[in-house]
Amino acid sequence: MTTVDLRPLDASEAGHSGVTLAVDIGGTKIAGALVDATGRLLVSARRPTPRGTGGDEVMAAVEEVLTELSGAPEWASVRRCGIGSAGPVDASRGEVSPVNIAAWRGFPVLERTRAALARLGAPVPAVLVGDGVAMTAAEHWLGAARGHRNALCMVVSTGVGGGLVLDGRLHPGPTGNAGHIGHISVELDGEPCPCGSRGCVEIIASGTSIARHAGFADAAATAEAARAGDPKALAAFDRAGKALAAGIAATATLVEIDLCVIGGGVAAAGDLLFAPLRRHLETYAALSFVRHLEITPAALGTDAGLVGAAAAAGQLLDV
Amino acid sequence: MTTVDLRPLDASEAGHSGVTLAVDIGGTKIAGALVDATGRLLVSARRPTPRGTGGDEVMAAVEEVLTELSGAPEWASVRRCGIGSAGPVDASRGEVSPVNIAAWRGFPVLERTRAALARLGAPVPAVLVGDGVAMTAAEHWLGAARGHRNALCMVVSTGVGGGLVLDGRLHPGPTGNAGHIGHISVELDGEPCPCGSRGCVEIIASGTSIARHAGFADAAATAEAARAGDPKALAAFDRAGKALAAGIAATATLVEIDLCVIGGGVAAAGDLLFAPLRRHLETYAALSFVRHLEITPAALGTDAGLVGAAAAAGQLLDV
Repeated sequence: MTTVDLRPLDASEAGHSGVTLAVDIGGTKIAGALVDATGRLLVSARRPTPRGTGGDEVMAAVEEVLTELSGAPEWASVRRCGIGSAGPVDASRGEVSPVNIAAWRGFPVLERTRAALARLGAPVPAVLVGDGVAMTAAEHWLGAARGHRNALCMVVSTGVGGGLVLDGRLHPGPTGNAGHIGHISVELDGEPCPCGSRGCVEIIASGTSIARHAGFADAAATAEAARAGDPKALAAFDRAGKALAAGIAATATLVEIDLCVIGGGVAAAGDLLFAPLRRHLETYAALSFVRHLEITPAALGTDAGLVGAAAAAGQLLDV
Repeated sequence: MTTVDLRPLDASEAGHSGVTLAVDIGGTKIAGALVDATGRLLVSARRPTPRGTGGDEVMAAVEEVLTELSGAPEWASVRRCGIGSAGPVDASRGEVSPVNIAAWRGFPVLERTRAALARLGAPVPAVLVGDGVAMTAAEHWLGAARGHRNALCMVVSTGVGGGLVLDGRLHPGPTGNAGHIGHISVELDGEPCPCGSRGCVEIIASGTSIARHAGFADAAATAEAARAGDPKALAAFDRAGKALAAGIAATATLVEIDLCVIGGGVAAAGDLLFAPLRRHLETYAALSFVRHLEITPAALGTDAGLVGAAAAAGQLLDV
């Protein structure tokens, strides 16, 4: 290996030796990077996600990113590949059907990526996870969940996603979708959600939902109005905090977590979201074994998707 | 070892060799048994749970059960001890605070049992789990969840409890309370629950709640009225099925399970509960990776608590 470890690796990082190719697939952009054993991005590349095209055109953008990275000297040291994708994903089949990439429905991104890697002289093992699981792997490796054995990590943004660390390990579930807290129902008879269910956390607490409930253009405008004391904007943030509190408490009650890390654009509103969330958590996290649950902002920024795809590969592949 | 294996052990039973002492502590009775490697109860004993007394008197009943069992010839072959208790429990401290045993609050049942075992010449390792986790271990070992790698097992009775199998192993959580599905909220603004939260699955779906909502004396009378077409009784079962469906779907969405096993007195109402539950599950289990979720009745009967305490000991103790 050509990289230098900047600090000692801990147990949760076992298997992270060498360079990992990370791919982060979202509705807006497709990013890739070569990530070293300390989580540093050695080289990165990105393309906008093609819109209004076929599945092969979207895959061509992934291949362009891989080809660009293959020109770096570190390419020869790549040992494994982690792919994080907008969901839903099916890790067991290696397929993705991202809500925001209409051209991909059951698209075999894992097999196609493996084929591209072989063509580029790097026939390494590869693994696919959902973006919530990837973000969780990143926060557990290098961020706010570091050292915690049982944690929920979430993104509250245009949607609400998440992932779980249980017993010190990433818990992706058989299809790579575990931790999908945005689509658990906290209101039996609540508003219908596009997913088909009712009263989901996301239909109450996503940035899109907060803005719609308050009557503003987007979450940022709603946050600004709330800071100026607008009652509808404050009520929308309070309701979002309540739904998140119920969902987080449900998770803790079901699997025993002691930490919930929250990132994403809406979390950037800070106490506008965190204050009502913590207050409502007093109600919903009622049983003795969940009362000590801590809520904390995410520590990693925009590279979390890439760092997380690398971390997931390190944890889930035995190389 | 003095017992005979009646069939080959499978992987999930590794460590079940020899005889296991199982203890099942509930609000009504305290039971104990010596359980062989196939889950057969070789000898058993029970006492009513003392009421209106101090903690030591309740422990004395446990010790009487142990003393009676120590007279059996198989006592010399005991390798480990599993204790399942009504919750909440704190497995990490070995303490229990069962709602229905008022004399025990933070009672150190694990240490006291270990001391009793040492006095009785069997200083074996012992483990404590909640009764929902024990029931789950039993159904996974010998019941309806056998061979499943990811399952939720529940009891719907005077309360609602449960436990989880994840990645083929029991998931008790750090304090032995994981799978506490009765106390997740599925109605943000629902009825206050004695636990301190609102809209919990239990406050809608327990036998006690079903009877109260329908205006009958108990769940059995409500079931009888529902079978005769009483609209309030039918509505109470429908509402219970809806709350259970939302809770089960939330569990599947969070950790990816493909099976939910339901036992307990209310589950014995059969299709009165299962039919609305399965119908509502179509709504709440909306995402692709949870749509294949199966619901099935529990296979084990009244001995599930003892069999489960033995199974948990076999899985959680490395002996």
